[in-house]
Amino acid sequence: MSAKTVAICAVGDELLVGKHPDLNSPFLARVLMDMGHEVAQVAVVSDDEALIAESIQRLAQNAQLVFVTGGLGPTLDDVTRHGVARALGRELVSSPEALGQIEAWYASSEREMPASNSRQALIPEGATVLFNPSGTAPGFEASLGDARVLALPGPPVELRAMWAQVIEPLLLATAPASGVRKSHALHLQGLSESVFSDQCGDWVGRDENPLLGVTAARGVLSVRCLARGTDEVQVQELLAARVEQLRERFADWIFSEESADPAEVLLRLLEQRAETITLAESCTGGLLSAALTGVPGASAVLSEAHTVYSAEAKQEVLGVPQELLRVHGAVSEQVVGAMARGAAERAGADLALATSGIAGPGGGSPDKPVGLVTFGVYYKGQVWTMKRNWAPRASRAMILTWATSHALVLGIRALTGRL
Amino acid sequence: MSAKTVAICAVGDELLVGKHPDLNSPFLARVLMDMGHEVAQVAVVSDDEALIAESIQRLAQNAQLVFVTGGLGPTLDDVTRHGVARALGRELVSSPEALGQIEAWYASSEREMPASNSRQALIPEGATVLFNPSGTAPGFEASLGDARVLALPGPPVELRAMWAQVIEPLLLATAPASGVRKSHALHLQGLSESVFSDQCGDWVGRDENPLLGVTAARGVLSVRCLARGTDEVQVQELLAARVEQLRERFADWIFSEESADPAEVLLRLLEQRAETITLAESCTGGLLSAALTGVPGASAVLSEAHTVYSAEAKQEVLGVPQELLRVHGAVSEQVVGAMARGAAERAGADLALATSGIAGPGGGSPDKPVGLVTFGVYYKGQVWTMKRNWAPRASRAMILTWATSHALVLGIRALTGRL
Repeated sequence: MSAKTVAICAVGDELLVGKHPDLNSPFLARVLMDMGHEVAQVAVVSDDEALIAESIQRLAQNAQLVFVTGGLGPTLDDVTRHGVARALGRELVSSPEALGQIEAWYASSEREMPASNSRQALIPEGATVLFNPSGTAPGFEASLGDARVLALPGPPVELRAMWAQVIEPLLLATAPASGVRKSHALHLQGLSESVFSDQCGDWVGRDENPLLGVTAARGVLSVRCLARGTDEVQVQELLAARVEQLRERFADWIFSEESADPAEVLLRLLEQRAETITLAESCTGGLLSAALTGVPGASAVLSEAHTVYSAEAKQEVLGVPQELLRVHGAVSEQVVGAMARGAAERAGADLALATSGIAGPGGGSPDKPVGLVTFGVYYKGQVWTMKRNWAPRASRAMILTWATSHALVLGIRALTGRL
Repeated sequence: MSAKTVAICAVGDELLVGKHPDLNSPFLARVLMDMGHEVAQVAVVSDDEALIAESIQRLAQNAQLVFVTGGLGPTLDDVTRHGVARALGRELVSSPEALGQIEAWYASSEREMPASNSRQALIPEGATVLFNPSGTAPGFEASLGDARVLALPGPPVELRAMWAQVIEPLLLATAPASGVRKSHALHLQGLSESVFSDQCGDWVGRDENPLLGVTAARGVLSVRCLARGTDEVQVQELLAARVEQLRERFADWIFSEESADPAEVLLRLLEQRAETITLAESCTGGLLSAALTGVPGASAVLSEAHTVYSAEAKQEVLGVPQELLRVHGAVSEQVVGAMARGAAERAGADLALATSGIAGPGGGSPDKPVGLVTFGVYYKGQVWTMKRNWAPRASRAMILTWATSHALVLGIRALTGRL
């Protein structure tokens, strides 16, 4: 059995019929871990008063903090407050403070409070109201034996706002984690999670200090390095030493220590240099353009971009010579290089990224299998080309996502002289 | 307390440190619900043998089926098999059948089986091996009191393959749900979940038959209608009647009864008619192009598409008259109509979709606030234009995602004569 620590009881029928994964518990687990608290157990239960009460009592036996999320809405099937009251052996009472908060919420948007919302002012006798800055349902806190029970609303937007504005400050004041904690993140592209772990060796152990947390998303590996200890200077040194080791060992793959989004990193670099970009996309078909224009401020660096899916479009839009297409085929370093140069010249851009590949599921051949993607980079008159082979078993969406991150990082490398 | 039914014990430290939400439980909940089983509880626990054992014993007291997911890997921190054995009060034994499956897995990819994988052949004495078609870890099944305990691997790809090929057929044969169940799905665009629910009235009640399940993703509302009963004909009639009512009430919003992806629906329509499409994207910046080229087979209907972010690009790439831009501004029905026509004419396409809007967070004005998006549709010589105002509080990503779904549905409407 784990040491006394944190448990979460996530309430809601919708979490148990396959509609929604429970996103609040992973969020709470991460922010609590940053504070030095460890989540040992999560119970996901339906909107059932007896089951809620029983789960809270059980979790409170082995945890100092029990978070109860969801089921604080105004309708009759929201019974979390009843379940908590039953677990505590107390009555529900209408809290004037909670009612005031709900009325103020409606007043702020000049609406009348529906009668059903007065139900949200009910809290167990003796509990403390917790302010909800972004919704009608206040939370509340009560004691059950040695455990503190905190009930929070279920909508992730409300829960996160409450965490930042109310719960984190409250816990920092009343349940400070022992010791000093410092963290730093590195973002890598082109390396799988398992290869990274193998090359890290002992560094990824669960009891290591610093502790490494690795998350993979959209072809990017984000490595979070968390050092813990009692002495500020020592913790800082521990962290700096491991970060330096990671920088040395993974120099070829780290593209940023600020952002996990290569589109944002590339766009900020272009902004700093007052340079411009354009795109010539065959297989990625708009994903590169969408990634860059998804970042606020894109209009300062991007004027036009083109999806050129057919051979005719590659010739007519970008001026790729027909001969090149005939001899080497559309998926070739020769063609993708000409696409990059053609796009840069027609847009008058400093940088151009081009892609052409076989994303599948059909269209592969022994020579050019599904998963083959060729890349072209034009930067200030110079052109580089390269190719990657992703596993043919990967899905079309995965191959296209990886190719997009890879192309964006090639752009970052071109600008920083590392191509 | 709920009736005897299904419970899930999801095992894994990674589910409790904020890295991953537990995606297996919502999947199992949905497919089990389709079979007539209801999931009443999920326990998410760390890789802790005692905690796993205790949780399984507790869940088995109130459930006929207990699924245990995760923790079947080859490394020392994978202790689910030990936890199940402890819950059953049995020893772990090496199963020749399981070992054979693991060896066959390695043989199929011409690799040597690492020694550590022999650990995956351990199952509780008396348990039955469950074949894993897409990974090294076999599952197993055992009895605990009146409950059946099924242990399945944690990687969602493996769990889903096992469900389809092994577990679903097994349960259909050995634990058939009582009664007849039939379902039908409708996909809507342009309506929020809450407005839909309000307009449905009683139809969305949790005890209704048919039961309505609503999920919202990327601006699309998918409504699943599930009828239950004992008589095949009656259930079919119940379902058909409700589906007909939904079709009538939501005719303006339903864009498909086959696919929730408007890009796929539009692409299949174009394929059937042997017609072609092109795109002229300002605010959506490549999202429309990426949505369409993300569907296999896109090359048959799309040759070229353009992101035209600047005024110059709108003029030079698409031939939008400078005068139109000067008088009405880039975000206007006049300009977006000219963009659609210009794109269709340069590509020789039957259909063209164009977007121009203010996605924020900056760039809004009283006249043209953040959230305003204008749409242009060209189809065989005719041009339609329209605008939408999304809430300025919505994020850039949300506005762009909604605008993308909306534009694709406008394309579907143009093709089906409903614009």
